Parts: sequence; structure tokens; C-alpha cells
Amino acid sequence: MIDLAIDVELTQETLVSFIYNEITHAGFSRAVLGLSGGVDSALSCTLAAEALGADNVLALRMPYKTSSQDSLDHAQILIDQLGVQSMTYPITDMVDALYASFPDANRLRRGNAMARARMIVLYDQSEAFRGLVVGAGNKTEILLGYSTLFGDSAYALNPLGDLYKTQVWQLARALGVPAAIVDKPPSADLWAGQTDEADLGFSYAEVDRLLYLLVDQGYNPEACVAAGFEADFVASVVQRIQRNHFKRVMPLIAKLPKRNPN
Amino acid sequence: MIDLAIDVELTQETLVSFIYNEITHAGFSRAVLGLSGGVDSALSCTLAAEALGADNVLALRMPYKTSSQDSLDHAQILIDQLGVQSMTYPITDMVDALYASFPDANRLRRGNAMARARMIVLYDQSEAFRGLVVGAGNKTEILLGYSTLFGDSAYALNPLGDLYKTQVWQLARALGVPAAIVDKPPSADLWAGQTDEADLGFSYAEVDRLLYLLVDQGYNPEACVAAGFEADFVASVVQRIQRNHFKRVMPLIAKLPKRNPN
Repeated sequence: MIDLAIDVELTQETLVSFIYNEITHAGFSRAVLGLSGGVDSALSCTLAAEALGADNVLALRMPYKTSSQDSLDHAQILIDQLGVQSMTYPITDMVDALYASFPDANRLRRGNAMARARMIVLYDQSEAFRGLVVGAGNKTEILLGYSTLFGDSAYALNPLGDLYKTQVWQLARALGVPAAIVDKPPSADLWAGQTDEADLGFSYAEVDRLLYLLVDQGYNPEACVAAGFEADFVASVVQRIQRNHFKRVMPLIAKLPKRNPN
Repeated sequence: MIDLAIDVELTQETLVSFIYNEITHAGFSRAVLGLSGGVDSALSCTLAAEALGADNVLALRMPYKTSSQDSLDHAQILIDQLGVQSMTYPITDMVDALYASFPDANRLRRGNAMARARMIVLYDQSEAFRGLVVGAGNKTEILLGYSTLFGDSAYALNPLGDLYKTQVWQLARALGVPAAIVDKPPSADLWAGQTDEADLGFSYAEVDRLLYLLVDQGYNPEACVAAGFEADFVASVVQRIQRNHFKRVMPLIAKLPKRNPN
């Protein structure tokens, strides 16, 4: 029996302190973050508003022309509920400027460019607002590499990286993130009809339990199969974790031999 | 007497092997890189062409409307000399799309957005060309944080990160990088008339010698002053190294207490 339920109060306190401490130690008092309309960024924004005060948080809505109106509306509900500062900046012109030259680019390329264009806007506003960029990547997404390198995985600090997706849902519900956001199927909204679980080929409820055994309990794949997971599923998740290792580490830098001075 | 001269043959062999090994181990055979017209990217491209074969290297020229014609011309000289594949993609429309909404943005914001727009183009072509992005940040620039986070410091691998700028010059000359590139004053070319040494307030020859004592020899600031460096200069360089630490490490991720399952 795998139970991923977290202690909500302890977790909330830990993450609010984390945001406050890291931002103030860096000499700042404000945060900038992107609000996609999804649960991760909604939770991250809720925690940042509690840590720094709503006035010190700038939430950006950055729709592309194909983004769903629901995403925009849900982000606005949260902005209104928290009273944080906000700005809406459509990334369509930036992204379409690129693909005017590469009209046959597939949706993977386009989706990555959208995530990176949002990073540019966030970091630009980080400078203008004098706030650090607060991310919202959860542990499931980080382990599976289900993110865009130098896009949504680019931030100064991330309160959610040790929470599995199912734990993000639990905490978001407990902290009053609107039901419209918590209850909808998760989606990167990079193209119409996209959902995370269709992209990934499995549900978060299922993979979080497997990741917990593999990563937190140190089970090997055979032990996961013995615990009731299908062998193919285990193998594909293990391979995904390994193949996306590069997204979790600094880029490789050559080291010179010691016959050189440095 | 501080002598930063490197063993050219050993260094060349090490860096060519580094590129070949890392790219093939990752399951690729090709590289994508940006050619600014400066010496760092020229050297990186030269090494990549030797490691992978010129046909397996895609060099991108990515001018902004204010970029100097010299930069473009110098990059083209190198492309012709090496015989690598090439593409020219002006980033002007992407960057100007952003600043249409923020017309009073200062040149620091604009310069960072240019570096990041180039990253987007490189990573887009990385996917299209099936090659890894090879960077060109030297050790001086990395230690001083003289780069744009998620911009020019974003790459899969970097052969130059253990070479001081003065060593980049030495190796570039030895490997036949054209004199027009090696001999000109270094510049990020983010605005007209910009030079690195004016930005930084000191020369590379000077700071490389100091960094060698501080970083490679482990001197404390007092020992550097005793070795002949001005106290103010030492203090400002030490502060710069510390203040830019965040650019050399992964973003901060909160860790949850062990009373939670993970």
C-alpha cells in the first residue's frame, strides 16, 4: 500500500519559508511567475503570495494564439482571488516571427519555442519588476523530463520540485486553489486538446506511485514488478528517467589536463 | 611570474575528443552552434568541425538589426574556411516583437533578450538538424558571470569552459582562426560600440592572471594583493565571482522534510 499523502501544514510552512528565505537572502523581496492556468503554477503563486505578500508578486499570463480561453480565465480567477499584481503578454508575435522562417516545423519544435519565449518574457519582467523568477516544476515532471529545457524549467527557485503531481493536487486543494484549476485534466496547452496523461501514456496517480518506489524507496525495477507494476511500464519509466538526466544537471564543460596551468 | 600559456597540441586533442565522445555517447553525430563573429565561437566551431567533420556542424549567424556588419562578415570567413554547414537567421523580429510592448526597456534587458532569442533559434535548429548545441563560454566569462543565463550560457556541452580568454586567443591563433577574428577587441556586440573590456572595467590579460591565482592556485585576496594586484581590483573580482555563483549552479529546488513520504 503506497500512500503519498503529505502533511499539508508542515509542507506549506516549509515551502513558504523556502520562498521567503531564498528571495531575501539573494537581496530581493519580490517574485515573478508565469500563470498557465494549471495547478502547478497556481500553487506556486499561492505560496509566493503568502511568503512575500500579494503586492510583491507579479503573475504573468502569456497566451499563444492557440492557448485555450479556459487557461486564461482560470489564471485570472487565481489572480483575483490572491490579489497579486498581474500582466498579460501574448507570445504569439515572438513565436510566429521564428516560424515565419520555418513554416514546416512540427509541434514539438513549436511547443518548445513557446515555453522558451515565456522564459524570455519572465526574465525580462524579472529585471523590470526586480523580482526573482519562481518556477513550478513538480517532482514527477522533473524526473520524467516532461518539460522544456531553458523554457519552463528555467527559474531562480522552485518550491514544488519535491512534490509529486498528486501531492501538488493535495496541497493545492488544501490551500484553496479554485476547483476549476485543481479538477481539470492537466495539460501543457501547447496545442489544442493536448493533455499530459495522453502525452505520457499513463496517469499521474499510477506513475507517482512507481516513482516513489524507484526514487524514494530505492526499489530496483524487478522489485517494482514484484510490487504489482507491469514490467513494460516500469521499463519505460526507468528509461525516461535516465534519458532525461541531462535536463537535471548543468551542461557538460570540458576539463583540461593538469599539464596546463589551470 | 604568472604564465598562462597552454600546451596547444594536448589541449586541442583533449577538446576534440571531448566533443566527439560526448556527442556520440549521447547518441548523436552532429553539432549546432552560434557564430557571433568573435573568437570564442570561432574556436568552438573549429574544434567541432575537427571532431565531427565539417558536414556534421551547422553554424548559425543570428544578427540583430544593430549587430555590426563586421561580426557577420567575420563569421562568414570562418564558415568558408572550415566548410561547415551554415544558416543566417536574423533575430530582429523576435526581439522587436517583445519590445513593441516594452518600448522603454533599457539595453541590459534588450541584450539579454537577444542572447535568449539566439538560444531559442539554436535549440530549434538542434531539433531540426538532430545535433547537440555546442557552447563557447570561456573560463573567464563563466567565473565573472559575464553571460546571459539561459542565453549564451545555455548549451548541451562546452569545450571552452576551462580555458581563460587569453588561452582561447592562444589556441585560436594556433588552430588557424583568421586574424580578423582573433585580433579584434572582444565584444558581445549587443549594442553599438560595446566592448567586453569597457563593460568589465579591466583587461582580460589582467583579470586572467588574477583569476588564475584566486581559482587555480587558491590564493586568498590578501595573497593576491601581496602578489602585486590592486586591492580594489581584487575585491571587485572576488565579489563578481560570488555574486554570479547562481549562474554556475542548478536552480534552487525546495526539499521537503522527511515526515512526508518522499
